[in-house]
Amino acid sequence: VTRFVLVAGTTETARIEGISAAGADPDLVAHTPSADAELIEYGHLVRAPTVPVSPTGCPTPAAVTRAVREQVGFETLVVDAGLAEPTGAPTVEVGAKPGRDIREADPVPTAPGAWVAARELGRALPDDELVVGETIPGGTTTALGVCRALGGEGSQPPRGDGDAGEFPVSSSLPENPVDLKRRVIDDAFEASDLDPGAAAYRPKLAVRFLGDPALAVVAGLVAGALESGTDVILGGGTQMFAAAALVRHAGVADPLTVATTTYVAADTDLDSAAAALDCELVVTDPGFAGRDDPLARYAAGEAKEGAGMGGALSLAERSGSLGSVADGTLEVVERVNGSYGP
Amino acid sequence: VTRFVLVAGTTETARIEGISAAGADPDLVAHTPSADAELIEYGHLVRAPTVPVSPTGCPTPAAVTRAVREQVGFETLVVDAGLAEPTGAPTVEVGAKPGRDIREADPVPTAPGAWVAARELGRALPDDELVVGETIPGGTTTALGVCRALGGEGSQPPRGDGDAGEFPVSSSLPENPVDLKRRVIDDAFEASDLDPGAAAYRPKLAVRFLGDPALAVVAGLVAGALESGTDVILGGGTQMFAAAALVRHAGVADPLTVATTTYVAADTDLDSAAAALDCELVVTDPGFAGRDDPLARYAAGEAKEGAGMGGALSLAERSGSLGSVADGTLEVVERVNGSYGP
Repeated sequence: VTRFVLVAGTTETARIEGISAAGADPDLVAHTPSADAELIEYGHLVRAPTVPVSPTGCPTPAAVTRAVREQVGFETLVVDAGLAEPTGAPTVEVGAKPGRDIREADPVPTAPGAWVAARELGRALPDDELVVGETIPGGTTTALGVCRALGGEGSQPPRGDGDAGEFPVSSSLPENPVDLKRRVIDDAFEASDLDPGAAAYRPKLAVRFLGDPALAVVAGLVAGALESGTDVILGGGTQMFAAAALVRHAGVADPLTVATTTYVAADTDLDSAAAALDCELVVTDPGFAGRDDPLARYAAGEAKEGAGMGGALSLAERSGSLGSVADGTLEVVERVNGSYGP
Repeated sequence: VTRFVLVAGTTETARIEGISAAGADPDLVAHTPSADAELIEYGHLVRAPTVPVSPTGCPTPAAVTRAVREQVGFETLVVDAGLAEPTGAPTVEVGAKPGRDIREADPVPTAPGAWVAARELGRALPDDELVVGETIPGGTTTALGVCRALGGEGSQPPRGDGDAGEFPVSSSLPENPVDLKRRVIDDAFEASDLDPGAAAYRPKLAVRFLGDPALAVVAGLVAGALESGTDVILGGGTQMFAAAALVRHAGVADPLTVATTTYVAADTDLDSAAAALDCELVVTDPGFAGRDDPLARYAAGEAKEGAGMGGALSLAERSGSLGSVADGTLEVVERVNGSYGP
């Protein structure tokens, strides 16, 4: 059995202006993970107010994941990694609470406990294979913070200077606000009284002070699943490379796959990042380029990834249904919204 | 789409000695709903310690529901109606907390709020059909209490004397401890300063003072689902008749089906109860009689129902797979326990 696990959480880091495109309206950003969970679980909204879209109307990658689910039929599990708004999707608890702004002194105090509980959950799940995705606005910023706290590319010895090196930092915005992200992370190191690289081989420290609850839960869950002999595909971009780095820094050396989209791969050098983390890399092209509908925005560099989209696409490719994902995604968005326009 | 909804909760009423057979060891009774949810969701245990069995080794009806799910393939949803022990099954929250002993003054203060939230959830679920089951130890006692508080058989005008009349009171024990149940309920009326029949047409009052959180959630969910045009099958015995009475007393008159097992039907006059509540009745025989394995205990009057078993069996019958439910159930129990013996 293959199970798709969505790790869904929030932080106040996402409220920093200019950090995230996960939601057209800033007031709706905190609803995005709750809505993504409902879309994947039901193909409809239940308690969430709207289908998340980027400011220009690009629909959430959760619609892509749902479309693949309707074709492939995998089992699902949503893990609450600090949801801040109600969701009608059933969730498993691991003790995670919403993260605060990483520029505070102790932004994610629930991270170590959530890691431990998620690891036990990952060990206990009976499935043969897990595909793990995340939905947490602002997540690429905290992922970069975690990577710098670990001291570089993950499985390699930390470099001492704390440079994130070749770590692939993508963004849900077409113009990646890298300078803003770096400033926020510099402030976070200062607030936590930590130096870059200081959390090497202490991954729980990295997520607690520079990260977010979703990264803690993904890393713990994956570590536990690998330890119990379950195959794991990390479905996503930047954040899943950070999760892989956390897993490697936790001393788990089992084979691990990262599956992402061509849109993330266009941003960054994923091959060397995957090699540094001893991960297999799968890149899938959903074929959204050149379409005359909102999905074309993915090819223009928006959204790119999230909600396990890359992992779901790898399952679609494996089952031979990749060609119908685009139409299926629009069908999901139209079913829920009444239209798929922005 | 047909979705199976398991409403899972606990009360301290179940701790009254002699009330419930839901768990061989009294210390494990509070784990039963958590374990039932995991069995139906995963076909395995994740966080719960053991497969619930009656004192003589009769496996939980959740194993039957799971076996049907493996054959029929329906979607699932677990609603937390006051779980007291951890479950690895994902759950939706409606604000329910574990119920206290109904012999206390205000045993289920979360019932009215949970009813309202469950009603909204029931309205919002996108499915064509819901099959609703419950798992709450001690639930037949609180079901009888609710029925007496409503004043009789439900849709009929309350009789004034508060007699539960023909209300079908089954039990998970072969010797139904009816006298004990009645004494407990008499004490509950006294503690709540309510008279039998006093909660007629005020169903939230009945569940709050004489009932349990699972009944509140089932009734609210069903009322909401019916109001939004979703077909509903109540899968179960005594408790589902009480839930139907609550729905009728809430003024919801839509068609409603109760699906149960021949083992409950052997206890009581279900036809007149169903007629009084204006419900269609479906009785399914899973064919456990005469077997030389623990399932034969069902035919001897143990367990009988629970965890939506009757509803699941009706789906098995509809899909033509009823004949393989018994072997499938033993397979589930053996997979989890390593054996199916007591």
